[in-house]
Amino acid sequence: MILAKVIGTVWATQKDDGLVGTKLQIVRPVELDYKEKTNFFVAVDAVGAGVGEIVLICQGSSARQTELTENKAIDATIMAIVDKLDVIE
Amino acid sequence: MILAKVIGTVWATQKDDGLVGTKLQIVRPVELDYKEKTNFFVAVDAVGAGVGEIVLICQGSSARQTELTENKAIDATIMAIVDKLDVIE
Amino acid sequence: MILAKVIGTVWATQKDDGLVGTKLQIVRPVELDYKEKTNFFVAVDAVGAGVGEIVLICQGSSARQTELTENKAIDATIMAIVDKLDVIE
Amino acid sequence: MILAKVIGTVWATQKDDGLVGTKLQIVRPVELDYKEKTNFFVAVDAVGAGVGEIVLICQGSSARQTELTENKAIDATIMAIVDKLDVIE
Amino acid sequence: MILAKVIGTVWATQKDDGLVGTKLQIVRPVELDYKEKTNFFVAVDAVGAGVGEIVLICQGSSARQTELTENKAIDATIMAIVDKLDVIE
Repeated sequence: MILAKVIGTVWATQKDDGLVGTKLQIVRPVELDYKEKTNFFVAVDAVGAGVGEIVLICQGSSARQTELTENKAIDATIMAIVDKLDVIE
Repeated sequence: MILAKVIGTVWATQKDDGLVGTKLQIVRPVELDYKEKTNFFVAVDAVGAGVGEIVLICQGSSARQTELTENKAIDATIMAIVDKLDVIE
Repeated sequence: MILAKVIGTVWATQKDDGLVGTKLQIVRPVELDYKEKTNFFVAVDAVGAGVGEIVLICQGSSARQTELTENKAIDATIMAIVDKLDVIE
Repeated sequence: MILAKVIGTVWATQKDDGLVGTKLQIVRPVELDYKEKTNFFVAVDAVGAGVGEIVLICQGSSARQTELTENKAIDATIMAIVDKLDVIE
Repeated sequence: MILAKVIGTVWATQKDDGLVGTKLQIVRPVELDYKEKTNFFVAVDAVGAGVGEIVLICQGSSARQTELTENKAIDATIMAIVDKLDVIE
């Protein structure tokens, strides 16, 4: 899974039936200090994360392993909101 | 999922049976301002997207989770046409 | 899917049983003008593509979604021979 | 699979039900001499690895092939603790 | 699939049950002239490949499509030993 920050939302009227009712959030991967990287992608929100929150994102077929995303054309899911990180280096 | 722009079409007579009747679109990933990146790949269109449109693309096994692409040798599917993005940074 | 050019063949006597009878082709991804990139990988041919031809390649679990490659240890399949590209940029 | 070092833990109260009871470890890929690379990601621990240990990580759908991670929204699993490497170059 | 050279072995006592009895080989991807690249990863050997041999490696869920690796937390499998390459460029 990767750490990312929710930075926005995609609006799409014309979409595959499986996506109706899902929230398509734009996310940017972040560093351990939550500094945003420059790339971004789109993930479906399974935990009610808002813009600005730091989240965990699951990708690939595993992104379909939640009640909301099962059997849907979704390859990235926000599956946790991060409270804090404990890092020892 | 990633944002991309449809820039063309692939024509292929000799192909796996599962691909008959699918539209093979050439897409370029785009930035948040829809500026095209330099790479490209091919995706099957599941929502009737035309050349020039900004779309959402699902990759990997999740690309097979639409009625059109189920059980086919397809690893990228256009599953939404983007209306607009709301981005807060 | 990605565009690639078939540039050769891998010969392997000692291999997993599922691969017996498959043709292991060496392919190089290409640009939209068919210019070869520098990387390469190996794909199983499901459509009778010869060396020098431009093909479409499906990767990951979707590579197993042809009659020839089903349930086999194959992660890349040539599933179409490209006739031409229509690109509008 | 890749070699990595466990460098910390993610705390997340609000998460998908499947993740309850799993330990979300922050890991950095390492070189053959265990020197850490600069990137990192998050993996679920299936073998009781502690911070500082060198581990093997399985990614993608294969990350769900342990008793602990089966059918869960998990795309990376720590599935072994490395004792030593034998390398001949 | 990718071409790689077996350069060593990982020893791990504490591991997921599915890995017991598997051989965890360290491999480096190679060029068409078998020159080693700088990266490496770990793959399970399904064909009895020894250190120094050039092999074909299957990744992702397809890595589980051999008798030895079925249903295991394995994302890369050595599924052929390369005899020779025929390349026309």
